[in-house]
Amino acid sequence: MLTLDLIYEAASQIGGRIYQTPVEESHVLSELMGVPVWLKLENTQVTGSFKARGALFSLIQAQKRGQNHVATCSAGNHGKGVAWAASVLRMEATIFVPASVDPVKVNGIRKHGANVHISAFDGYDETEAWAKLEAERLGLPFISAFDDFDVMAGNGGTLALEILNQVPGVQSVVLPVGGGGMASGVSFVLKEQSNAQLVVCQHQESAAFYHSVQKGYSVLTMPPIQTLASGLEGGFGLNTFEVLKNRFDHIHLVDEPSIRKAMVWMIKEHQWIVEGSAAAAVAACLDASFPKSAGPIVVVISGRNVALATVQDVLNRP
Amino acid sequence: MLTLDLIYEAASQIGGRIYQTPVEESHVLSELMGVPVWLKLENTQVTGSFKARGALFSLIQAQKRGQNHVATCSAGNHGKGVAWAASVLRMEATIFVPASVDPVKVNGIRKHGANVHISAFDGYDETEAWAKLEAERLGLPFISAFDDFDVMAGNGGTLALEILNQVPGVQSVVLPVGGGGMASGVSFVLKEQSNAQLVVCQHQESAAFYHSVQKGYSVLTMPPIQTLASGLEGGFGLNTFEVLKNRFDHIHLVDEPSIRKAMVWMIKEHQWIVEGSAAAAVAACLDASFPKSAGPIVVVISGRNVALATVQDVLNRP
Repeated sequence: MLTLDLIYEAASQIGGRIYQTPVEESHVLSELMGVPVWLKLENTQVTGSFKARGALFSLIQAQKRGQNHVATCSAGNHGKGVAWAASVLRMEATIFVPASVDPVKVNGIRKHGANVHISAFDGYDETEAWAKLEAERLGLPFISAFDDFDVMAGNGGTLALEILNQVPGVQSVVLPVGGGGMASGVSFVLKEQSNAQLVVCQHQESAAFYHSVQKGYSVLTMPPIQTLASGLEGGFGLNTFEVLKNRFDHIHLVDEPSIRKAMVWMIKEHQWIVEGSAAAAVAACLDASFPKSAGPIVVVISGRNVALATVQDVLNRP
Repeated sequence: MLTLDLIYEAASQIGGRIYQTPVEESHVLSELMGVPVWLKLENTQVTGSFKARGALFSLIQAQKRGQNHVATCSAGNHGKGVAWAASVLRMEATIFVPASVDPVKVNGIRKHGANVHISAFDGYDETEAWAKLEAERLGLPFISAFDDFDVMAGNGGTLALEILNQVPGVQSVVLPVGGGGMASGVSFVLKEQSNAQLVVCQHQESAAFYHSVQKGYSVLTMPPIQTLASGLEGGFGLNTFEVLKNRFDHIHLVDEPSIRKAMVWMIKEHQWIVEGSAAAAVAACLDASFPKSAGPIVVVISGRNVALATVQDVLNRP
């Protein structure tokens, strides 16, 4: 179960090993939105994304249970986070990744010494189904990329505690949502400890949370799509849905061209390379239909793991 | 005079307002150089470069002297640092910049509320000469971008203290050198508190420190050149030369194509946009003629303030 105690436990366990990433005002967004807008720079996090938080906490928990070799499935950042956490904790990690994975992410995983298995499937959901069977066959405990309370506490819970501390009086948090690991943890802390609104951003062609809310139950799988925002692709979690369904205020859907433009915008205005999933939250803020909000607003910039060819491509065809 | 006391004073005064930036291992450079290589990420510093350190400390010192409006001349990062520091301290700043300045840097300065005056000259040295006359005419104290003990203590001194703390046993520090503000402060701390070697990297077409060492006196001006590494262009300082001349171990000269390639390399391998001056230190490490060194090595990544058009250009013509 997700509790404040678990979240404080996560913050205390991972504190010395992950960064309290900075918040940076976006003067351009502040002017556009009429209130101060701060970027929470998880692109500067160790491993290049917030996923290091939850990965480290869940591996610490696994180690406490006597497990020294874990398996996971990840489109990239969670895998890199688990690989890094395993090297920090001197554990072994086996990572299953979709065939469509960004090569920079596979390199990021391998350099930490983890075993990588590339799936025959392009989509996340099929790959995860296969990965769970493989992990069982190998006798390895499987660490979910998002639908796990330790991951939620680490990824989103610890992040939200920092946001409340760094931007006192924050009125709104805007973040990208894939499987819901970060969003659920953030939502839990925000609703317990602040009056801030939560705006969750999804890809309109893979809006699992949006569809889950419509239907009233978690949509666990979605057809694979081609997108720069691979972290937003795929189904939602059972546990994350239970946490998030009553703790969000607005869902904002963005399309592929706006994600691409937001990646270029972040380079132009902030000199940050960010991945498509991070750009989705920026794209929402740049969207004329984004709901008016009180400030300060915090936008979570979730990661920076993008291949050079992708950066070149978005800059040449913005 | 530069002293350890002044450097500790700087560290204590600016501590809560600048970031202790992370160090990140470059696995690719570690493999290439055969020893652990760490990047000191001043590209993630507030204002996007290490210059925030010295600017803040020198404005704190000016404020103590009762000065509430200062002038400076800067190719960009120092100006942005001074503008930011002035806004933090509620002071006024007037910044003179060369005609050739990168537009992203002018925007970075203006958004902090400073007055910007663009020179008729392309080169740094002519602009500085003009700026000093203008400041005198306006009755404003002039804050040097580098040839000032407060700036040296803030920019290089506080940076070196962090490096010694973050990478215990560091054997070599590699950094880019323009006017010597950062290098002199770093050199002072390294020689007082460690056995680390200092490798200073200069642009071969504007190698003021190299020529100063050859001649035995500081070369105060250099002809302007066209380069991506605008922070490395121009003459050396009188005071910085006195500090640095007996406190460095090796000068490594790099050319324009290698700087360009290193900018692309940093995007490819680390997903960081870095400016040409920062890339110069990386270019040195990637150079086959770079001297063998014991490790760990720390490479100072000095800043990230680059215009979008420049990023597009280096990616399209690496």
